[in-house]
Amino acid sequence: MRAAVLHAPGDIRVEEIADPRITAPTDAVIRLTATCVCGSDLWPYRGVESLDGPIPMGHEYVGVVEEVGSDVTNVEPGQFVVGSFVASCGTCAICRSGYPSSCVHRVFMAQVGTQSERALIPHADGTLVPLPGTPDADLIPDLLAASDVLGTGWFGAVAAEAGPGRTVAVVGDGAVGLLAVLAARQLGAERVIAMSRHEPRRRLAAEFGATDIVTERGDEGVARLKELTGGLGAHSVVEAVGTQESMQQAIRSARPGGHVGFVGVNHDVALSGEELFFSQVHLHGGPAPVRRYLPDLIDQIWQRKINPGKVFDLVVPLDEAAEAYRAMDERRAVKAMLTL
Amino acid sequence: MRAAVLHAPGDIRVEEIADPRITAPTDAVIRLTATCVCGSDLWPYRGVESLDGPIPMGHEYVGVVEEVGSDVTNVEPGQFVVGSFVASCGTCAICRSGYPSSCVHRVFMAQVGTQSERALIPHADGTLVPLPGTPDADLIPDLLAASDVLGTGWFGAVAAEAGPGRTVAVVGDGAVGLLAVLAARQLGAERVIAMSRHEPRRRLAAEFGATDIVTERGDEGVARLKELTGGLGAHSVVEAVGTQESMQQAIRSARPGGHVGFVGVNHDVALSGEELFFSQVHLHGGPAPVRRYLPDLIDQIWQRKINPGKVFDLVVPLDEAAEAYRAMDERRAVKAMLTL
Repeated sequence: MRAAVLHAPGDIRVEEIADPRITAPTDAVIRLTATCVCGSDLWPYRGVESLDGPIPMGHEYVGVVEEVGSDVTNVEPGQFVVGSFVASCGTCAICRSGYPSSCVHRVFMAQVGTQSERALIPHADGTLVPLPGTPDADLIPDLLAASDVLGTGWFGAVAAEAGPGRTVAVVGDGAVGLLAVLAARQLGAERVIAMSRHEPRRRLAAEFGATDIVTERGDEGVARLKELTGGLGAHSVVEAVGTQESMQQAIRSARPGGHVGFVGVNHDVALSGEELFFSQVHLHGGPAPVRRYLPDLIDQIWQRKINPGKVFDLVVPLDEAAEAYRAMDERRAVKAMLTL
Repeated sequence: MRAAVLHAPGDIRVEEIADPRITAPTDAVIRLTATCVCGSDLWPYRGVESLDGPIPMGHEYVGVVEEVGSDVTNVEPGQFVVGSFVASCGTCAICRSGYPSSCVHRVFMAQVGTQSERALIPHADGTLVPLPGTPDADLIPDLLAASDVLGTGWFGAVAAEAGPGRTVAVVGDGAVGLLAVLAARQLGAERVIAMSRHEPRRRLAAEFGATDIVTERGDEGVARLKELTGGLGAHSVVEAVGTQESMQQAIRSARPGGHVGFVGVNHDVALSGEELFFSQVHLHGGPAPVRRYLPDLIDQIWQRKINPGKVFDLVVPLDEAAEAYRAMDERRAVKAMLTL
């Protein structure tokens, strides 16, 4: 089958690799309808994460079940499914407590690869959610967003305790940050402040429900945010970047007793214990337990209540994956969808 | 009046200083019945925090109101009162949200000093809680503990979401750690694992309700704790030390989705963003909002349901403050009470 493979930083090639095969009775194989490129795919693409030889890329997916292992009972061939970027058993204590992304048997789909014609899904029963039927074509981007960026933004907003009466700030205007804006509004937040300096992204943030925009960054952004919040800071802050600067900006933007949900994959970040202590914020984050939210998110999409697929501003066939990576790397695209 | 004054690291002297005077209409002056030495007093005593000339010490107190400013209405002269180690207005948005220790008008009592015959209490209405009457002498240590260490241990347990069905681990066997054990049990925790290697402290932990003791420290302590919790880690972890090692031990001891309440004042701690991200714990702490808990804690003490004063294993007159500091510095005492 064809798959996007990273050979070296900046070198994505779509080439033939072996078809996935079921080896465990809990596996499934799906035929992809669409997949996409994630901000976190850019870390190895940019050489920030080291590479030991060529790796198949991607971890987001929607598609149709082709084959299931003998123990799989929740999904069957022919069903249209969405799954999380982390495969999870659904039955361990950690899954049952709502943290499938830290499942004791978890498999990061990035280690399997989904930018391909087919994909192996471990723990299919725990991981995949079948849809009520075959979706209309225009719902595909929305459903694909649920696989990671919507679910991740949603978790960020939940971890930040966005809700009625709350002022929520979002640091980061990538797809996850933009969808955290959407999530915060859906969760009932009174005010959603998007911290963004890029005009097209600010427009999308406003469309998703942002009530205010702060264009300043770092400590200037914090100062501006405090002006907007009576000097106190936001009740809730979603961090959706993962750098030292963005984490500090998020922590400093929250009021004492406030909540910071951080979903940007942290790279080379060191948080001062003293600052965290005296900030008195709540901090929670990590790889989003997307599977927890999938049934609800799929339902909202199916009922056309939300339109998260708007984050895809570039749609190309899988064969043009290299261009999709380039466009995201150069920030020409917020998020690129790959069709099959 | 007499007061304990730190002149240089290791040099505590009890000497005459000016009596406190009411300057703001919201001030009160109390006559101390008892005060004590805190683990955090040891930071400047040991020279870890720098010193600009002599400073009056102490921030814990119980006593009788002597005089109040013209705006004070909640307490009056003659009343026996307990207050938090942070003076707070009680009316700002942060106080009302339950975080008086981050009150926008807060005054750390350590900057005022309470190891003295009298003490100035700023924001008396927000800070002081009057008792139903004059307490029996044997309740004084319990009430004094409520002023900081009990309230801080309690906050640690609440921040760690200790409660029914939960396994709670406590890192640190100072007075705060020991009282976090008491708090976790009072909050209904099923199992409380005290991480302590010191025999007398382990005994006290058991008396306060610890069900298990782990004597190993650092990563060995984490490994032992995981053995005790089915490989997953504790639901709730209270950190009550404030060092790099203890913070790491606490974070690594919690299961994914678990809660770490950290109340040890952090010094030179740098937390890895990556580790925090993948640990998927909730982290919350800081200077404890003791005032939030005081009415309930005083009630539990008044009804003789809890006996937190047991942490005082050395009781000396204020004049012997230097010996109290030495005993705590050398770990001969868990906590030293100073009588007046």
